[in-house]
Amino acid sequence: MEGRTVSGAIIDGKAFAAGLRERVAAAVPTFVEAAGRPPGLAVVLVGEDPASQVYVRSKGKATIAAGMASFEHRLPVETSQAELIDLVARLNADDAVDGILVQLPLPPQIDEGAVIDAIDPAKDVDGFHIANAGRLATGLPGFVPCTPLGCLMLLKGRLGELAGLDAVVIGRSNIVGKPMARLLLNESCTVTVAHSRTRDLPSLVRRADIVVAAAGRPEMVKGDWLKPGATVIDVGINRIDAGEGKTRLVGDVDFASAVEVAGAITPVPGGVGPMTIAVLLRNTLVAAHIRAGLVPPAGL
Amino acid sequence: MEGRTVSGAIIDGKAFAAGLRERVAAAVPTFVEAAGRPPGLAVVLVGEDPASQVYVRSKGKATIAAGMASFEHRLPVETSQAELIDLVARLNADDAVDGILVQLPLPPQIDEGAVIDAIDPAKDVDGFHIANAGRLATGLPGFVPCTPLGCLMLLKGRLGELAGLDAVVIGRSNIVGKPMARLLLNESCTVTVAHSRTRDLPSLVRRADIVVAAAGRPEMVKGDWLKPGATVIDVGINRIDAGEGKTRLVGDVDFASAVEVAGAITPVPGGVGPMTIAVLLRNTLVAAHIRAGLVPPAGL
Repeated sequence: MEGRTVSGAIIDGKAFAAGLRERVAAAVPTFVEAAGRPPGLAVVLVGEDPASQVYVRSKGKATIAAGMASFEHRLPVETSQAELIDLVARLNADDAVDGILVQLPLPPQIDEGAVIDAIDPAKDVDGFHIANAGRLATGLPGFVPCTPLGCLMLLKGRLGELAGLDAVVIGRSNIVGKPMARLLLNESCTVTVAHSRTRDLPSLVRRADIVVAAAGRPEMVKGDWLKPGATVIDVGINRIDAGEGKTRLVGDVDFASAVEVAGAITPVPGGVGPMTIAVLLRNTLVAAHIRAGLVPPAGL
Repeated sequence: MEGRTVSGAIIDGKAFAAGLRERVAAAVPTFVEAAGRPPGLAVVLVGEDPASQVYVRSKGKATIAAGMASFEHRLPVETSQAELIDLVARLNADDAVDGILVQLPLPPQIDEGAVIDAIDPAKDVDGFHIANAGRLATGLPGFVPCTPLGCLMLLKGRLGELAGLDAVVIGRSNIVGKPMARLLLNESCTVTVAHSRTRDLPSLVRRADIVVAAAGRPEMVKGDWLKPGATVIDVGINRIDAGEGKTRLVGDVDFASAVEVAGAITPVPGGVGPMTIAVLLRNTLVAAHIRAGLVPPAGL
């Protein structure tokens, strides 16, 4: 930010995520004492997609770092849907497993929805099961997908009470946009969901106190689209050409112009990204408590 | 409308509902021929709430008029949750029953959510089961609550393609507002959900091509809130004092002023109201086809 006047505060997702991971880790010993075992997260990877391998490795490391048990199941790319559902059934029945995460995407011979819905909803720490989507949709307690829940935590950490604020969510995926809209509605924001068919996105964004960008389009949201002082959560992670044969990561928001107008904004990287695994650990800890008949610790 | 210039077309929900009921009834004989039995709808009423009794009676009459089998189960107000869930289990197992509707509200000793979620989702023609809410929330096929689906049918009947239109849904109930927003999002509208915490509702409404009012507040939406030409769906049914000891039914929209500005508007009564039962019959016919392994007729 050398020499520039920056009006927007940077929301340090990395620090926020580290704090959440610390709070989760601090609660693990008490759980172990009460339950006689650590919380356990099972991660299932089918095939050898390089990005998925990186994610699974990071999740395993973070799980162990939090004092939890990590169970990794790696299956060959030709695994059948029946074999995968069989494994899920064994994990459902395994008392040491509190959370089950099936890394997406799955190979084409496997119906992702059928596999996700085979997970015991009480172990669905990714929040993708139809029953958990239904609970979120109707305002009932349940597991919420990690990325939008992480975004909400960042927003509440920054703004406190959200009721009455105008929020625009750009993007309508089942993983981010739709659950994000539902979370913000549950917080009593006035929520608009925008997407590729939206006619005048800039003027829509200009009315918003909260902007969550999850469209998967690099640097789409410009600073002059924003209401001055708006809080901007950038969920996008796009690798773009940086010239001279190099690439760099950018979000869905044009950070350089947006930071001049926003009241607060998450950077990419170091904003929303680190929250996802931290929330996964949080969800696993909560699942472990509920399965053991224990009250989850407050403040998570 | 004596002597006034009316710019807005009236959307005749009564006629539209009658047409839908006719199309359902016309499809029943073919189903009977293929399945060897009529589609069946079971309606369960606990207690003697007068309004609920009227609804249940209307549903039974409409079911029979469409050529379907109607099964009414009336239980005393002191029925326990276990007894009611027991009945639901029997209806789930009864092959003659394609749709199960438990009339709400239930007496206070019964957890409505527990009862609804005991219904086989394949027979949940009211679309209130958590699994069907989850399917709607994630864009999967499933049963959709009758009133919002009826509103969508009226909108598509009037406007045809909805993609790209700005829609505002006022109200966020699980029965109307939330599923309505999800249906409009699935149609690629840019959807805003407003509610009691929304700060500037008039200016929000003024931007909308489609306004669905489901707030339960008599004549709240005024004509001068509307964008000229907007399509207005009024879900409200409120009984208000009409002076001289009389009452009358009004919607959530101030019809007299709104009809001067709207491009089209549903009246109250005779707008959305008649659609609900027609969609219930439609959902029951669809459920019957799917349960029998048959393709539901097109155009429903």
